[in-house]
Order: sequence, then structure tokens, then C-alpha cells
Amino acid sequence: MKITEVRTIVTCPGRNYVLVKILTDEGVYGVGEGSMNSSEPAVAAMIEHSSQWLIGQNPFNIEDLWQILYRNTYWRGGPVFRTALGALDIALWDLKAKALNVPVYELLGGRARRGVLCYTHSGGGSYDEIVEDVQRCQEAGFRVIRVQHGGYGGPGILGHDPNPIEGFPAIPIFEPGGYLSDTPKMFEHLRMALGDEVELCHDVHEQLGPTDAAWLARALEPFRLYFLEDPVMPEEWEGLRQIRSASTTRIALGEILYNREHIIPLITERLIDFLRTPPMRMGGLTEARKIFSVAEMYDVRTAFHGAQDIGPIAQAASVHFNLAIHNMGVQEWVTYPDAAYEVMPGACTFSEGLANPNPGPGLGIDIDEDLAKKYPFQTARLPIFRRWDGGIHRH
Amino acid sequence: MKITEVRTIVTCPGRNYVLVKILTDEGVYGVGEGSMNSSEPAVAAMIEHSSQWLIGQNPFNIEDLWQILYRNTYWRGGPVFRTALGALDIALWDLKAKALNVPVYELLGGRARRGVLCYTHSGGGSYDEIVEDVQRCQEAGFRVIRVQHGGYGGPGILGHDPNPIEGFPAIPIFEPGGYLSDTPKMFEHLRMALGDEVELCHDVHEQLGPTDAAWLARALEPFRLYFLEDPVMPEEWEGLRQIRSASTTRIALGEILYNREHIIPLITERLIDFLRTPPMRMGGLTEARKIFSVAEMYDVRTAFHGAQDIGPIAQAASVHFNLAIHNMGVQEWVTYPDAAYEVMPGACTFSEGLANPNPGPGLGIDIDEDLAKKYPFQTARLPIFRRWDGGIHRH
Amino acid sequence: MKITEVRTIVTCPGRNYVLVKILTDEGVYGVGEGSMNSSEPAVAAMIEHSSQWLIGQNPFNIEDLWQILYRNTYWRGGPVFRTALGALDIALWDLKAKALNVPVYELLGGRARRGVLCYTHSGGGSYDEIVEDVQRCQEAGFRVIRVQHGGYGGPGILGHDPNPIEGFPAIPIFEPGGYLSDTPKMFEHLRMALGDEVELCHDVHEQLGPTDAAWLARALEPFRLYFLEDPVMPEEWEGLRQIRSASTTRIALGEILYNREHIIPLITERLIDFLRTPPMRMGGLTEARKIFSVAEMYDVRTAFHGAQDIGPIAQAASVHFNLAIHNMGVQEWVTYPDAAYEVMPGACTFSEGLANPNPGPGLGIDIDEDLAKKYPFQTARLPIFRRWDGGIHRH
Amino acid sequence: MKITEVRTIVTCPGRNYVLVKILTDEGVYGVGEGSMNSSEPAVAAMIEHSSQWLIGQNPFNIEDLWQILYRNTYWRGGPVFRTALGALDIALWDLKAKALNVPVYELLGGRARRGVLCYTHSGGGSYDEIVEDVQRCQEAGFRVIRVQHGGYGGPGILGHDPNPIEGFPAIPIFEPGGYLSDTPKMFEHLRMALGDEVELCHDVHEQLGPTDAAWLARALEPFRLYFLEDPVMPEEWEGLRQIRSASTTRIALGEILYNREHIIPLITERLIDFLRTPPMRMGGLTEARKIFSVAEMYDVRTAFHGAQDIGPIAQAASVHFNLAIHNMGVQEWVTYPDAAYEVMPGACTFSEGLANPNPGPGLGIDIDEDLAKKYPFQTARLPIFRRWDGGIHRH
Repeated sequence: MKITEVRTIVTCPGRNYVLVKILTDEGVYGVGEGSMNSSEPAVAAMIEHSSQWLIGQNPFNIEDLWQILYRNTYWRGGPVFRTALGALDIALWDLKAKALNVPVYELLGGRARRGVLCYTHSGGGSYDEIVEDVQRCQEAGFRVIRVQHGGYGGPGILGHDPNPIEGFPAIPIFEPGGYLSDTPKMFEHLRMALGDEVELCHDVHEQLGPTDAAWLARALEPFRLYFLEDPVMPEEWEGLRQIRSASTTRIALGEILYNREHIIPLITERLIDFLRTPPMRMGGLTEARKIFSVAEMYDVRTAFHGAQDIGPIAQAASVHFNLAIHNMGVQEWVTYPDAAYEVMPGACTFSEGLANPNPGPGLGIDIDEDLAKKYPFQTARLPIFRRWDGGIHRH
Repeated sequence: MKITEVRTIVTCPGRNYVLVKILTDEGVYGVGEGSMNSSEPAVAAMIEHSSQWLIGQNPFNIEDLWQILYRNTYWRGGPVFRTALGALDIALWDLKAKALNVPVYELLGGRARRGVLCYTHSGGGSYDEIVEDVQRCQEAGFRVIRVQHGGYGGPGILGHDPNPIEGFPAIPIFEPGGYLSDTPKMFEHLRMALGDEVELCHDVHEQLGPTDAAWLARALEPFRLYFLEDPVMPEEWEGLRQIRSASTTRIALGEILYNREHIIPLITERLIDFLRTPPMRMGGLTEARKIFSVAEMYDVRTAFHGAQDIGPIAQAASVHFNLAIHNMGVQEWVTYPDAAYEVMPGACTFSEGLANPNPGPGLGIDIDEDLAKKYPFQTARLPIFRRWDGGIHRH
Repeated sequence: MKITEVRTIVTCPGRNYVLVKILTDEGVYGVGEGSMNSSEPAVAAMIEHSSQWLIGQNPFNIEDLWQILYRNTYWRGGPVFRTALGALDIALWDLKAKALNVPVYELLGGRARRGVLCYTHSGGGSYDEIVEDVQRCQEAGFRVIRVQHGGYGGPGILGHDPNPIEGFPAIPIFEPGGYLSDTPKMFEHLRMALGDEVELCHDVHEQLGPTDAAWLARALEPFRLYFLEDPVMPEEWEGLRQIRSASTTRIALGEILYNREHIIPLITERLIDFLRTPPMRMGGLTEARKIFSVAEMYDVRTAFHGAQDIGPIAQAASVHFNLAIHNMGVQEWVTYPDAAYEVMPGACTFSEGLANPNPGPGLGIDIDEDLAKKYPFQTARLPIFRRWDGGIHRH
Repeated sequence: MKITEVRTIVTCPGRNYVLVKILTDEGVYGVGEGSMNSSEPAVAAMIEHSSQWLIGQNPFNIEDLWQILYRNTYWRGGPVFRTALGALDIALWDLKAKALNVPVYELLGGRARRGVLCYTHSGGGSYDEIVEDVQRCQEAGFRVIRVQHGGYGGPGILGHDPNPIEGFPAIPIFEPGGYLSDTPKMFEHLRMALGDEVELCHDVHEQLGPTDAAWLARALEPFRLYFLEDPVMPEEWEGLRQIRSASTTRIALGEILYNREHIIPLITERLIDFLRTPPMRMGGLTEARKIFSVAEMYDVRTAFHGAQDIGPIAQAASVHFNLAIHNMGVQEWVTYPDAAYEVMPGACTFSEGLANPNPGPGLGIDIDEDLAKKYPFQTARLPIFRRWDGGIHRH
């Protein structure tokens, strides 16, 4: 079998997704995804460049092809390249599993659990609203629930920059004081209202400096979080050490990580409990198998990022991987707009707390290329914050 | 598909081998091996105990079955259990690959090289004899050649214990002085006679203490060894650190290792360059995939032990694994007596420096159970050494 | 005096025990034990293989014989071999002490205390039941008492796997949340009900990951435990460091350890306060003397595992050893079924908080070989756990 | 002053270059460069996306704009984004310096030396050819000269892969043995022929594993290198530590680095002596000022990568920066095809060992946009290597 063509598809059925399709001379093909917030055209350009090396090759030699793609780029790292590599690698696994007529998880070691434990998002403008929202999530079958007080930035948001960038939305102003004061109180309220059983987590969104993050992680110990996410930026090696030495709160991190040389020391030093980097972002299932083999040795588990910026195909890759490995932790779960499900038929489903892939060989999901063309790429911008004095905030 | 029976076969077609066969209700079966010098009955007993858990299970769920076997034993580690687990795990991979009609290496990531680089043993009673023997090996196609001066213990052997254990062969006497003085001279002679190109390695057989081993590793630097094997016992953490800080000679080690908690720190501290623990000894291909994923992050490579105490089925598992991973190094290569090849038809072959598996699905090798019965187990003893003063030598 | 025969006896007077008897040409003999949960046939096979080296030897040369046995096996480590070595070594000490007509503790340095402080197990389905059970133990003379809420897994048990292995007992499901929430509350209740004086310990049974274990060890600080046992798996080097840096709760660990290279770093880094590996499991009294010599330098003490999987002979070895060394801590104490006491007459006794050996030379205990034959080996299985999502749980 | 437009220009006057031009409402404009081997379309896409944030802004607020660009991307790192950021940042500094009618180095602290010490490349197929080539470089005014024996891979190249990728140039085969044996001999020959005065350096091109690299760094000590470049991949933290503890040869590294969290630990641990990451690659002059402020504290110096994959504008940014900082080391110097000098008039010049920028405000260099259009982007591929057994080589 030989690879004859690699197609890169950028589509926006509600949100921008970068998709890839690897075709062969025997008709069987594989699908992959390399979506990346605000960097879609860069990833698409990288996939197109890298895929030259695949034409004429035997798609079964995944490790060899991965190494060729990885080594020939000269740069090896960075989120754009690692995501492009991830898209191609996921498509190769889908292709091979389809050719052997088994689900992808069979090639990764076989099914190791009945489904993938998922967590969902809840929140509200007041403590009581949050309690209600958590209860709604519990009724929907979730056993692990992320709670946030208010919108992005929570009680740290003081208003908006009075001097915004021309033509851009006004920039919110964040100060850590209010956020730090509020968060332990929120959890105290939640534990009193909801009891000790429900598993709760919380996302700091990298808004805190190291000492504040350590303060918060210690202050939250009595409420036994399932995890505290992104307490600082993952670049802050010493900050992460400071949090660890100050507290016993479980730490989840990694949704913006991509390079093995950054991830591995976080694991081997046990600076984290959950690694959130999904297979797509780190170079695909081939790299995820290796990285999470290291993680298994240190009891670091998956908590794959799975917000809507990661589409149904990358979600399926995460779910197949989570089904097959021992050190699975929890999976962030979202649903997509109808249009996304139509462009990518065969998405994973959620039921009674667990996600499972669509049955069928490979990932179980496909691309409707004609439909994808009806949703062209749309430029989007992510928010930034200023401090009260007008300086740009950390994250 | 369900596992219906697990057969344990101990046979001695020239040397003792412990073999295993996992049978299913659909007729497809897998073969594995768990041979272990002088501990064969213990391994066979352990396989028989552990295999209870497999009956009735779906053999495709290899990761889950591995975890069940690993966790239920209570002990998890040790060479007897890890080897028993390795035998069962190898048989599960053989079975699954046969069921999918592909070679085992396809399930491990696909072929990543045209063959497996092998090294062989050479030696002689004099430097000139060694030179001739190396040249003979080169003509046979080997690019990497292990050289030893004299028999086991080399020029360190002073004779035999005058007061041997009753009924046992006389114990040799070893002193490090002669061995240390000789070895750099041997390599100087070999490099002068053979040039710089041929890749040479040497096995210390754990005969030296840490400081002597560091002395030797440094003294051999000018001769650029392919590797220096087992300079000390692998239990000697500080000794290994001492060797590393004293020298830049490549170190190979691990033929008697088995537990991940012992292996992983050797890799992450980069105390070794080559890990010699074969998949069979560490719990099978499932564990080897994980351990060598860690090793890839640190550029530690395979140099799987492959003397005759490891039989043709375990050799095939090593070769398939080496074909599929990136951080393959070199494979120790031996041939077996004809009887062993007849009991286990379909062994790997060596040609022009490279080993390759027998084509066909699975490992490509089988067990002739009737023939195996004709070669019953035979008790054997391994040698030990005394020092000149009569004390037991280290290894 | 020469060793003429080594007999290996596997018997099941209520539970499987592996016993050994070393006979000499002068009539005096020694008894030892190498029991090992679910690995009895493997240990018996290993004892039979190793004991070849002893025939014809002078049994008084214990150090030399230990080194011969240790070095000739090629593998040196692992629980099967170390336990087999332990059985033979204990029998040699028993033999020598009998020949000299003194208790074994006299050869280990003499009696250093009037008896061996013991702890026992208590528990119950409710806090009040636990309180009552502790009081019952106090009345029975115990000053140190282990407390557990519920059965194995405690309040972490959610029920049973809906999809059990065919023909096996249903697998319990464990999640750490309920267990973590409950345990500090249990200790708060116990301290309020029982006061601060009684020494309480608790066994995590390796059920927690490192961060959760650190959380628990810190949360239990106010209740001043005698020790917290097996908070993580002993393989988790970084996890143990994390627990230590997070808390000041005393840690006991080691019932599944056996190799010196694993035990020694735990001591020299002071990652533990009590080492639970009994002499039988680490290669006998000869090895225990050396390991606990290192431990004395770091004030690490004995807390020998002594559940029913370790029989009366190994218990006697532990008690003699504890009587003689300086850094004795506490001894886990159980009683055995009558049948076991009959098969092994002369077991240690407990009175007013302390254990003592049966008077008489050697260990003070014997084997009734005829009776032993009436209780043949019975296959047994240890429990495993799944998580709620169906994945195999850590331990 | 307000930014009105950002133009991205991809041109191939001999080699692909990505250029940027920031225009304002006052007519003054700045030029920058973000060239990146084989990733040009990805960088261009990233510049176009990021530059949205600049429109309408005051170009003098470089720190604020840098933080906006850096924080809003969500990803912050990776060579594609860091290079895009570098291109924009360099253009902002050019613009501001032009507006103030001073050279860029004046804004960076003023001129701190009369010119920038440069090194050049020499080599040959034999030791004598290399000697002649070094002498030619000396006559051309170079005081620091890089020497290589043979082409890329040097004496490690064994020929070409017999089984090349279809439609691609045959892949060279590399084995470290020949390269390791040769390199110390080459330096011994050069020192004998050329004396001790001339400063010589050597580039390993990441071809060696850690232990081999440590071996080479130690073997080269007698020849006192100016630096040894890229002895291993910069991802290999433990490998770099191993090289450092084994040798006192100066180490230069970083041409493929880009993220501050990777660079800073190399400096603070003093694993390197020279950092080769040019300002363009790390996010521009704004980031270079900060990173080399840290480097000054540890006496780590610049040795900016400056091969032809970095064009004349990025070269000018490096030269201005090197003129102004204290811990300048050496600059890699190349000349470009005439077409490149015509597309980018005003390039730096070299004379008597030193480089200097074109006089005039800003960087002193411009872009001829009409001419640039005549040289459209051309796809190019970088070489990869296989080992003799067919496996992909490390780098």
C-alpha cells in the first residue's frame, strides 16, 4: 500500500478546524485533525509542507514516517509543527486500523476500561447559581465537574480598559486580589452545600504568579479538589516547584504544551498530577504513547484538554487513547454545533459519565469534504487582559 | 474471542527453555517464552499460577490483561514473576498479530529499519588469536564484535579453589589486578592490528568494584569502545555514578534487571547508554514499549541480552521490537543447537550484519509440542568465583 | 558437621506455608520458612534448586554459604529467590543455635529488651464500632493499634465491577475520593473518643497516588499517628519524596520489598521511619542484620510485616531478631489457626503488649512433618480492584 | 504616530526569506525579517494573523506591543510564532530608530565596540585541504574559523540509503564511529600545521548521542577549541550535563532554540558558553535584550547563528545587538547571492575581522518590494540521515 495524496481541509462549522485526509492506492484512507486556536493557516501551511515526505510511502510504517517528519523539519518543536505532525500521525493510525478492520484502540493495546471518565464545566454569577449548575451537571451524569465563579477571570475582573486598542474589543482588567479572596470561600460554600462526594476542579487560567498560586493551592487543601488547573504558566519551572512544595492539591497543566523536552521534566519531577496536552498537540498518538509511558512510571495521568477549539476528530483520538492506556485520568468533554457533527460524522458520544467512540474500524469518524467547503475559515482573536494600572497582565 | 487454555512447556533441546502457548475458542493461538537460567521450575510454577486469570478473557485486551496479571500477584516484581509475565504477554502479542494477519512489529508501530544490527562474541587465549577471531567475525558479516581475552574471568583467573565444595566442580579464583592490567593492553593491540573502524565491545561480567570499573572505563577511552558491559553490579547506584563521572566510555547494562523501578532511574540519570534487559525479562512487549519510550527521551538504546539462555521465541520478540522502535541500538546474536530450531521452527535469521524475523503473521515462530516433550528439563548450575584468600568473589 | 539433606515442605494448615528443614550428619537440624502469597510453588522450586549447593557443607559457615547461594543464582534478587534464600538462612541460624544450645537471639548479639512491642488490627463499619474495637485491643494488652474503617479499601469501595472476569469473584471498585474524605474524620472521632495516649496507626494499602497520599499524610498530622503504612507503592521514589516534603507523619513501608538496592536508598534518604520487610523476605537473618545496621545509622526502625501470610517460623525469626537489635520499633502481631500451631509447635507467645519466643535453643519452634503432609497446598487468589470507569486500579 | 499597515513579503533571491514592513501614518516605516527554513509559509501566515493587533497602535510602545502580541496568541512559544514575533519586533525597532534618526544600536545602549568579531566556515576533503582553507580564511581577515572534514556528516557518512523514499533524493547514511575517530586526529593535524594561535571551532550538527559527545568534547581538550557547536540536540538536558561534567571544552548551542523557558535553564546551569539563538528567532530585540541580560550574569556570550537561512535584515539585527551589549562573543558570518543584496539593499559589511552595519538610521537596510516579487517562494527540503541498519538517525 502506498500513500498517494494528503489533503488539508480548513473549515469553520461554528469554529475553525484544520483537518487532514491521507489517501492510498488501495482506496483505504485515514483522517486526522490539527486544529489550533488563531494559528490555523500556519498549521495548514505546515501540514502541506510536511506531507510531501509521505507521498509514495507505506502508511503502515508509522514510527518511521513519524521520525522522518520529525527529523526533516529541522525545528522538531513548537505548537504549529507538533500539531501538524499530530494531524498526520492521527490520520496514519486511523488508516492502519481501518486497513486491519479494528478500532484504533486495538492497535494501542486494546480496551482497558468500559469508557472514558469525563468532566464538564459549570459556573455562575453567585455561589448559589454555581451549586445549582453543579447539580444540573450531576443529573446529566457527570462525576467530575469544573466550577468557576463568573466569567473568564472570575472575581478578578475589575471592568474594562478605558483606553482600548483601536478597532478591537475593550480589554478586561484583572487584579489577583479579589480572585484570591473569593476562591476558597466559593469552595467552602460548595462543600457545605454539596457535601464531600462530588469531585470538583477549578481552572486558574494561568492568571496567578507563583506565590499567589501556591497560596491558593494551599488554601484549597481542605476542600480536596479533583485538580487545580493551570495555576501558573507552564514556563514557570520554579513557580511549579514552589506550588508543589507548598501544597498537596492535585495540579493539572499542559493544554498549551507541545514539546517533549518541556513535558518530560514536569512528569519526572512530579510537578503535575495530570497532563492536559492532547495527542493532537504533542505530535499525535505515536508521541502520546511515549510521553504517557513516561507518565505511567510517575503516576501522572491524562486530563486531556477538550474544549471546543479541539474538534471531533482530535476528540476521538483522545478517547481511543484514553480507552487503551493504564494511566487514564479524566477527559474534558464538550459538545459541538450541529454543523461540526455534520462535517465530521461519527463523533464520540457521552453517556452516564463516560465517553465512548463510535463503533467501527479506525477512529470511527469521517470528513464530509463537500460540506466542509461550505464553512470557510474565519479569523478570530483570543482575549488578553490588562492590570488596573494599564500594564499587560501575565497570561 | 476467548482464551480457553494456557500451556506451560519446559524443554531442554540443548538448554532449558520455558515456553508458553495461549489457546482460544477460535483456534488462533499465541506462543511465548519465559526462560530463566537455573530458575526454570520457578518460572513455570509462576506462569501456571498467573494464567488462571486469563481463562475466559478476550486476548485482544492486552493492556488490561497485563495490568490484571501485574497487580494481582501482590509482588509485581522480581525476575521470576516478570519473566512469567513476559512469557504470557509475548504470547498475547503473537496471538493478536496472528488474528490480524500481520507480523508483531506492525502492532508495535511498523517496520522502522531494514534489519536489526547484531553483535557477536570473539576471543582467544592470546592477542593474536583474538585478532584472528575478530577478522573471522567480520567476514561473517558482523560490524560490532565483543572481544574477551581468555575464558570467563579472563586474565583475572588465577587457578582453582584448592578446597572445593563437595561434589561440585572446582571454583575458579579471580583477582582483579591481572584483569585490569591486561584489558587496556589488549585493546591497544587490537586497535593497532585492526584499525579504528571496527566496532568493539567488552564484557566485564560485573567482576570489578566501582573504583576499578571507573579506572578501566577511563583507561579504555582512547580505544573508543562500542560499549563496556556490566562494569559493576547494577545494584551499585553510587558505583555507576562514579563510572559515569570518571569516563566517557559507553556503558551497557541490564541483563539481570527486571523491575521498572530499578531500570527507570538508570535511564533518567543517564547512567547507561544501552539497556540490555530483553522484553521477556521485564514483563513482555507491553512493558518494553513503556520502558523504551522512557529510554528514547534520554537516548538510551537497546542492546538486548541474547545469549543461549534466551531461546528462539524470546529472540524473535526482541527482533520484532527492535525493528519497530526508534531507539534501537544493537542486538546480541547467537545461534542455537539444531534441536532447539526443530522444537521452535521459524526462528529469526542473520544475514550481512542484520537479523530479521521469519516472515508470516505474529512472531513467525511456533512450538512443536510433541518434540519438546522429548527433551525434558535438566538441572544446571552457574559458576561462582572465590578470591585468592578464599572469600567469595563479588559477582 | 556436614549438611546431608534439605527438605522443602509446602503445607496449608489454614493458609499456605513453605517450610524448610536442613539436616546434618550429626542429627541436629534447623527449620526455616519461605512463605509467599500466591507464589508458594515458585519459592519451593527455588529452594529445591538452591539447596544443591548446601549438601556436604559445614552449616556453621553461614556467611560463606549465604554468599554462595546469593552469587550462584545469577539473579540475586526478586521476592521468590530472596524468600527462598531467607528460608534457608533462617534454618541455618536455627541449626547453629541448637548446636550451641542457645536461643537464636544470643547469636545475634543477645537479648536487648524484655519483649517485642506488638501492634494489632482493629476496625469496624462505623466510627463507634472502631472505638469499641480499639478498646477491646487495649484491654488485650496492645499499646499500638491499627485502625481501618470498613474492609479492604474502606470507604473508597463503591461496589463491584459489573463486568467481572469469568469464573472469578467480582472485582471491587475503588475510588480515592470517599476514602480521602473519610480518613481524617475517622481519626478526629477516634482522638476525641479515645484521647491522645493510645498509639494508632493506619494502612493505606498502596491505594493512593502520590499527591493524594501527601494530602492524607498532611491531613492526619493533628492526630499524631504511630505510623501511616504503605501510602503509595514502594516503587514510587518521587511519590515518597513528595509525601516526605509535604508532611511530618511517620511512614512505614516495605512489606513487598526484598532487594537491598531498593531498601537502602529509602533508608539513607530517610523516606521512611519504619521498614516492614521481615527477615524471611529479604534473604534471612544474615541480610537483616546488615540492612538494619544501615537503618540504625538513620534511626529507621523495624515494623515487620506479620499478617497470616507469614507463618509461625518466620514470625519467630522476626521476634528473635527484634529482641536483639537496638533499632527495634514494633512488630505486627497475629495468631494462627490451631492447625498451624500443631504443624509448627513452639510458636512465639504474646502477653501484656509484648511477644516472646518459646524458650529453648534455636528459634524454639519445630515442624511436624507428618502432620504437614495432611494439609496439602491449595491454590489461592489475591483481590484486585478496578476504578469506576473499569480501568484496573493502581495497586 | 499610528501603525497603518503591516506587509508580509516572502521572496527567494537564492534562498527563501520572510520579510515584514510596518508602515505608519507619518510615512516612516520599519523593516524586519522572519525567515525560517522550510516553514516560511507558516511564519508568513502567523505574521499576518498577529499583525492585526498592531493596526492603529503607537509604534513607539514597543514593550507594550510585544506583550500584546506575545500574550494574545495563546501559545506564546514555538519557532513559527517566535520568529513571526521577532520579525515584527525588529521592524518596530527599525521604525523607532529611523523616526529618531539614529542607528538601532543607539536605542539598545549605544556602541560598545568598534565592530562585531566574526567567524567563517572552512573545510576540505583532506587534512591538508583544510589547512589551506583555514589559511585562506585567515588571509581574508578572520580570526575565528570553523573547520569541518568533508561535507555535512563528515567522515561519519558511509554512503546512501539503498532504499530511498520515492521521488526524494537518496538519504545519506551516518554512523558515529568514523566521525568520532577522525575528529581529534583532524584537530591534532591542524594544531601541528597551524600552531596554537588561530581560534578554531567545530560543528557537530547534533549528530552524536550524549556519551559520544562527551567523549569527543574530552578528546578535543588538548586542542583548545574556540567552541564545539551542537554536540547533542538541545532537548537533551541530561546529555548536556554529561558533556559538561566530562569536559572543559567550550560549548555553543541554540540555533534551533526559541523559547525562553528552554534557554534560561541552559544559562543559569551554565551548560553552555555561547548561545546561538539570534534575536529574530527568539521574538526579536526586545526578548534578546532580556535573555542576554540573564546571560551576562553567567558570562554566557552570543554566537548568533548566521548561515544563509538567515537573511541580511536579520543579520543586521544581530550585528546592531552585538555592537551594543557587553557579553558579545562572536558572530557567524556569511555573504549572500547578489540577488539577495539587491532585494535588501544596505546589508552589513565585513572588514578586517569585524562586521559593521550600514550607516544610517534604523538597521540601515531596506526592502525593494518590487524586486522581491520577482523571486517567488520555492519549496525546499532539508536533508535527513539514516543509520546503516536503515533506522532514522537522531538529528
